[in-house]
Amino acid sequence: MHAIDLITLGDELLLGIRQNTHLLWLGDQLARYGQMLRRNLVIPDDPVVIQRDFAASWRTADVVITTGGLGPTSDDLTREVVAAVLGLELEFDPSIEATIKTRFAQLGREVTENNLKQCYKPKGAEVLPNPNGTAPGLYLEHAGKILIMLPGPAGELQPIWRDAVIPRLRKADVLAERTPYLQLRTCGIGESLLETKLQPIFARQPKLHVAYCAHQGLVDVRLHVSDDTLKLEDLQAIGETCRAQLGADFVGYGAPSISSVVIDRLKALDQTLAVAESCTGGLLADRLTEVPGASEVFAGGVVCYTNRIKMALLDVPSALLEQHGAVSAATAEALAEGVVKHFHTDYALSVTGLAGPTGGDAATPVGTVYIGLRSATGVCSRKLFYPFERFIVKSRAVNASLDALRRELAGI
Amino acid sequence: MHAIDLITLGDELLLGIRQNTHLLWLGDQLARYGQMLRRNLVIPDDPVVIQRDFAASWRTADVVITTGGLGPTSDDLTREVVAAVLGLELEFDPSIEATIKTRFAQLGREVTENNLKQCYKPKGAEVLPNPNGTAPGLYLEHAGKILIMLPGPAGELQPIWRDAVIPRLRKADVLAERTPYLQLRTCGIGESLLETKLQPIFARQPKLHVAYCAHQGLVDVRLHVSDDTLKLEDLQAIGETCRAQLGADFVGYGAPSISSVVIDRLKALDQTLAVAESCTGGLLADRLTEVPGASEVFAGGVVCYTNRIKMALLDVPSALLEQHGAVSAATAEALAEGVVKHFHTDYALSVTGLAGPTGGDAATPVGTVYIGLRSATGVCSRKLFYPFERFIVKSRAVNASLDALRRELAGI
Repeated sequence: MHAIDLITLGDELLLGIRQNTHLLWLGDQLARYGQMLRRNLVIPDDPVVIQRDFAASWRTADVVITTGGLGPTSDDLTREVVAAVLGLELEFDPSIEATIKTRFAQLGREVTENNLKQCYKPKGAEVLPNPNGTAPGLYLEHAGKILIMLPGPAGELQPIWRDAVIPRLRKADVLAERTPYLQLRTCGIGESLLETKLQPIFARQPKLHVAYCAHQGLVDVRLHVSDDTLKLEDLQAIGETCRAQLGADFVGYGAPSISSVVIDRLKALDQTLAVAESCTGGLLADRLTEVPGASEVFAGGVVCYTNRIKMALLDVPSALLEQHGAVSAATAEALAEGVVKHFHTDYALSVTGLAGPTGGDAATPVGTVYIGLRSATGVCSRKLFYPFERFIVKSRAVNASLDALRRELAGI
Repeated sequence: MHAIDLITLGDELLLGIRQNTHLLWLGDQLARYGQMLRRNLVIPDDPVVIQRDFAASWRTADVVITTGGLGPTSDDLTREVVAAVLGLELEFDPSIEATIKTRFAQLGREVTENNLKQCYKPKGAEVLPNPNGTAPGLYLEHAGKILIMLPGPAGELQPIWRDAVIPRLRKADVLAERTPYLQLRTCGIGESLLETKLQPIFARQPKLHVAYCAHQGLVDVRLHVSDDTLKLEDLQAIGETCRAQLGADFVGYGAPSISSVVIDRLKALDQTLAVAESCTGGLLADRLTEVPGASEVFAGGVVCYTNRIKMALLDVPSALLEQHGAVSAATAEALAEGVVKHFHTDYALSVTGLAGPTGGDAATPVGTVYIGLRSATGVCSRKLFYPFERFIVKSRAVNASLDALRRELAGI
């Protein structure tokens, strides 16, 4: 076990403006190799604090990871302060300059003077290319320790970590083979009931660590061991026993999104999908199109936020809307029918509901959602109720809708 | 300005299993009174680490807030370790015992032995009632400093903070009147060019702290002062000077989403909007429908992921698609025209592009996006290029599209 510290920089994190997502992401990345961060320190863009806290961390850690403060503006100070603590000069790196100039040219933007700051690095540091931004990552082995400096935006940090940092930490023997670790993703079963169902399986394995993590209708189960009493094959055998016990509630191993499971299954079956969304307002289509290659099986959808659009684009009869209302099983089914007719797909999903915060009445309160599913065998719908905030209603309704199709496609 | 440290305990935070939400919430709470946390330290449930890191923090801070580790189980160690560092005995508090017994009786549950652990507190600490759980918060003024210990669950911590901690920190003069703080949100200008433009304004204010935060095409500028040399009116005057300098790149004060600015403006003008999305796949509609009350002005949209749907639902001529291709200015404009025709709205936005990771060629590489805007004065389009990952292409294209409409509606 190595002493790995994460130092996350940024006033915005301490002022409650932005979530510190790096701790969650990097913590999980290291956990996959059986490493737990020793600590995470979140500090401001203040050179005095950075110097003191980085120096204290560097004295006792084996590996220090910094995030943020590598950008072009005057509050980006990480590389200067860290180089000073290590007693290293900053040296100009022409390869960084060339990359920045090419990128700005591609974007048709002007390279301002402050951008050139990003071309300096502590002497001896390796440059880790950043295909998604201007500030590269930096990697330095120094005095028997390892320093990793990463840019703050998650979309830049994560590819650098995966492509450049993990291989170097493997080579430096900080990350060994992954220790036995297995995650099962489930949907459609609550955390406490899930634990009750699986507990008898885990009770036979005293050395097994089990953790549950619930989010937006999904529950992940993580299995790991901190010694060598169980091998990966053993975990896989335990996983298969859980899978048999869970039936259709088992989504997959790892952390597959339900949309990726659905898209993969549609590809395998050579079938197509389109959607109609009222209250989810595009989020269902967005989740589906997050999956690379979705266009092979996903034709598109209609966001029908008004009754007029439901009628004009998806042929929902006005009499049906008048009789049952827009938030009803009948409307959900009519929307799914309309989608199949206009998009010529094998499957259609529909969602109609009240995401709030206002609207609704005693019969149909805010949080009421109907999801519809049209397949070769006909159309069906289901009523759901999420008495939560607007964004949670949208997210839960999308997951429920995708999960209905997942079960249909699995033939379970 | 007081030195306030937040120490967040929990293995699950360091293993990437749970998000550290307390930093965001407490950071924001303190920022409302002009206080910025000096640091947040996330550490494991390990008595050796807790002792060392708490002691180090207590030496230099004015206020230390701990979260977590107050529960009944064997890994809940905060109160024991902290009392030892302060050289204080733990004393039994009968009022806590009475509260726990009452609560368990209400729930019809038995008080197990380990629950009585929660009845102890460092000698002299005040008990802060926890109406949502068993472990109370604790408040202690000791050696000229303040210690606040809060339970880990957010639903328990937050009411204790609001009802019991804020009044005590006000009385102790840690939180005074809210202090001057101002944020400006910008769009359409890079971080480095923004700083170059605004620097001359800020250079006249040596006591002003300025921080920049870039995310997905937006850049926020935060202004604050840590003493009383500038008042809120002074910051507002500086903000207005920046606003004049920024012109159309100024989105608003605070952190308004571009979609909320657009929706508010459409409401004020009593005009309506619909969208057509190819590569953004529903994300544009999703962002618009994140705004409560969006349905008053947003009619909906079509996710036209195939050429057939572009033709069938939005009347894009097949000859046009053949001649120019789906990813072209002509198609973006035809999509926007088709939307206005079918949705009967005043405005339409369209997006067509290649989000990748595959597809594209030399003439139209992955990352190429065209956005279209249809208004009363006609239709126009713009070519963009985002050589980034799929989800970043989608997000940047959505922000650029919303920003085009924001500028149109502002009449700038």
